[in-house]
Amino acid sequence: MIKKVLIANRGEIAVRIIRACQELGIETVAVFSEADRDALHVRMADEAYCIGPTSSAASYLNFTNIMSVATLTQVDGIHPGYGFLAENADFAEICSACNITFIGPSPDAINQMGTKDVARETMKKAGVPVVPGSKGIIETVEEGVKTAEEIGYPVIIKATAGGGGKGIRVAKNEGELRKGITVTQNEARANFGNPGVYLEKYIEDFRHVEIQVLADTFGNTIHLGERDCSIQRRLQKLVEETPSPALSVEKRAEMGEAAVKAAEAVDYVGAGTVEFIFDHNTGDFYFMEMNTRIQVEHPVTEMVTGIDLIKEQILVASGRKLSYTQEEVTFRGHSIECRINAENPYKNFMPSPGKIEMYLPPGGFGVRVDSAAFPGYTITPFYDSMIAKVITYGETREEAVTKMKRALSEFVIEGVDTTIPFHLRLMSHEVFKSGDFNTKFLEHYSIKPESDEE
Amino acid sequence: MIKKVLIANRGEIAVRIIRACQELGIETVAVFSEADRDALHVRMADEAYCIGPTSSAASYLNFTNIMSVATLTQVDGIHPGYGFLAENADFAEICSACNITFIGPSPDAINQMGTKDVARETMKKAGVPVVPGSKGIIETVEEGVKTAEEIGYPVIIKATAGGGGKGIRVAKNEGELRKGITVTQNEARANFGNPGVYLEKYIEDFRHVEIQVLADTFGNTIHLGERDCSIQRRLQKLVEETPSPALSVEKRAEMGEAAVKAAEAVDYVGAGTVEFIFDHNTGDFYFMEMNTRIQVEHPVTEMVTGIDLIKEQILVASGRKLSYTQEEVTFRGHSIECRINAENPYKNFMPSPGKIEMYLPPGGFGVRVDSAAFPGYTITPFYDSMIAKVITYGETREEAVTKMKRALSEFVIEGVDTTIPFHLRLMSHEVFKSGDFNTKFLEHYSIKPESDEE
Repeated sequence: MIKKVLIANRGEIAVRIIRACQELGIETVAVFSEADRDALHVRMADEAYCIGPTSSAASYLNFTNIMSVATLTQVDGIHPGYGFLAENADFAEICSACNITFIGPSPDAINQMGTKDVARETMKKAGVPVVPGSKGIIETVEEGVKTAEEIGYPVIIKATAGGGGKGIRVAKNEGELRKGITVTQNEARANFGNPGVYLEKYIEDFRHVEIQVLADTFGNTIHLGERDCSIQRRLQKLVEETPSPALSVEKRAEMGEAAVKAAEAVDYVGAGTVEFIFDHNTGDFYFMEMNTRIQVEHPVTEMVTGIDLIKEQILVASGRKLSYTQEEVTFRGHSIECRINAENPYKNFMPSPGKIEMYLPPGGFGVRVDSAAFPGYTITPFYDSMIAKVITYGETREEAVTKMKRALSEFVIEGVDTTIPFHLRLMSHEVFKSGDFNTKFLEHYSIKPESDEE
Repeated sequence: MIKKVLIANRGEIAVRIIRACQELGIETVAVFSEADRDALHVRMADEAYCIGPTSSAASYLNFTNIMSVATLTQVDGIHPGYGFLAENADFAEICSACNITFIGPSPDAINQMGTKDVARETMKKAGVPVVPGSKGIIETVEEGVKTAEEIGYPVIIKATAGGGGKGIRVAKNEGELRKGITVTQNEARANFGNPGVYLEKYIEDFRHVEIQVLADTFGNTIHLGERDCSIQRRLQKLVEETPSPALSVEKRAEMGEAAVKAAEAVDYVGAGTVEFIFDHNTGDFYFMEMNTRIQVEHPVTEMVTGIDLIKEQILVASGRKLSYTQEEVTFRGHSIECRINAENPYKNFMPSPGKIEMYLPPGGFGVRVDSAAFPGYTITPFYDSMIAKVITYGETREEAVTKMKRALSEFVIEGVDTTIPFHLRLMSHEVFKSGDFNTKFLEHYSIKPESDEE
């Protein structure tokens, strides 16, 4: 069993991992940039070491300094959290070379899922549905045109090395496609050093539905149901929930099986998420990508299954068998998460760093808060603006939404602007309440409270 | 449906009730004494009114002022919480006379359960096991001696008007009994104006196990399992948990049925708790008393059943049917509650009023905090010293205990002494961890950390 873990991250996820370690009786080592000297994860860990100046590149992405601390403190495990080094196969490799357990999948699994067109082909072979598209990289414009005719317009041109909304272009007809392929190739060459692009059918009206999987080193892979993350702003998830209001029991089982197949295809170990495009008009779903790490929205799954995902990650990385079989995974109730960012929702979500003067998180039945904030904490402008996750649980979706409204209403954060008013407004929106929406929700509906525009 | 509720209470339970009302879309009216002007329940309610000076008698027990506010604000319901007026049949009667729904059972049910020897006889008739004892009040010493011979020594002499550990005396033999009856009668006459005493077999080695019941006005009565409250200090509960480590599935069902019978015997409506003496050596259990109100420890039941007890109270009082049948009540996992008091556990639990300078409640998976505290809040010496309840949930008892340790460790309360170090020590105590203890646990074991005695 792993005895001492270095947490190569900051913020709420570092706090989350420290909590899990404490509950497992594992010693913890925090690392921090100069800007994070007073952060909560630093205070909560058994030991804490500065790994460099403020910039992420110099600190939280700094292999050498992180591995130095790991060696110095003699940890036998490193948890990367999400972001930063979480999906960096080289880092996982270095951990392994240093005889330290990387709490995540193998470098090979990270690589296979990290390269988009490779992942797509692997999934096709494994029998996981993918969006109709080209067979790998398009070599010529003519090949692209031929493929587009086969799958039908609109199509989406994607750079194989792209990600996070970059290197992507939609083409509604042959003219747009011909231009688009060349432009995207040039962009991709300039931005990612790899001009490879491929084609997929463009599905406009879909929901983002993802499946949580867990796998151990004994070949057991299970799924823990879905999360619906259709509420997004510029491809950033803002609200997540489980179960998805759009999924039937049969569809959940079907997608669950597909996700397990996806994980098995790359010999996945640990916690991972298989993201799907869910066409709620036809009931079809297509592999989008696999996140080979813990996700921000993992708590909603924990709330309805009772399973601690971070603990399972650590146990599996320690060589233990999964604590649950697929049959032992049961679902109860509904859970929603709202990401609270230090941003001004009335000023185009402009970041709002500063000192939190007054802080009182909501409490009571069915309310969970995952946060690294505290009274007097200064939010720096250097990293992610997310300062808290409010997660609610109810027997029904309606109850979870009602609890979220109540929890958001009583959340006191003074000194900085937050997205709480946005979420409050969203929770009362008729379309949101109906559960019937797609990923374009925030493009179609304005959530800005009128009273604040005056 | 009730539309507007006055909360005739303060502290965490007032906050708890306001939260439930908000989630049900019910308007709230808080009342407060002059000492509680800045309290959290005052800030959270839609309206708040001062009902008198600091002393409870002049404020939270002041019928006239509370009913004046109720009339003024046109509420249609009053929730009494626990303590203060919660088990005052006269107050319930007055509410009814003013056409305001008292969110609790009928005055008659309160009375029948409030008078000890009456409740005992009612239970016997209903087939609920009671501790062997005298048939009602003992008229003469000789009658007492005869009864004691029948049931066997040791016996306990109880004043029918007593309560809270007063008007109670144990007799191990005839000599002690003869003296004891007279002394207890005299004390009871002097203290309660009623010299009536009765006898019960004295059970020394038992666990306090209570059953939560819910009943509606349609004659449906269900139970939500038990709470084990054996960890007590001077008859004050400090830690509660469910399920009880001492109960089998069969025993739970048996006690549940007995509790339902008890409630039905007095036409009970609302949430109530039937407390039992559980003889863990023989498996026998005996009716102790029924609390005709919500209890401090209700959250642990909510955590394992998913049922919101305060909401059910309000729904039932509004004339709705119970939201659940007995078959629909399911239990999952284990939950523990620690009562955090502003007291110094190293100085004989001396109250520690004062200003909370820094306050950060614990968070994360499986942790619930019910509290009315906040940074800058001043704890007055006038009322209950309980300032927070930490409730944890785990799939197993061990996990719930582990989570409690973690939650207590990260709970920051600066400026006053609290019982957090006591609870931390308790959670690590081998006997507590074994689950095998009785109500004398804190008499038998010292929980004082040695390091703090130096």
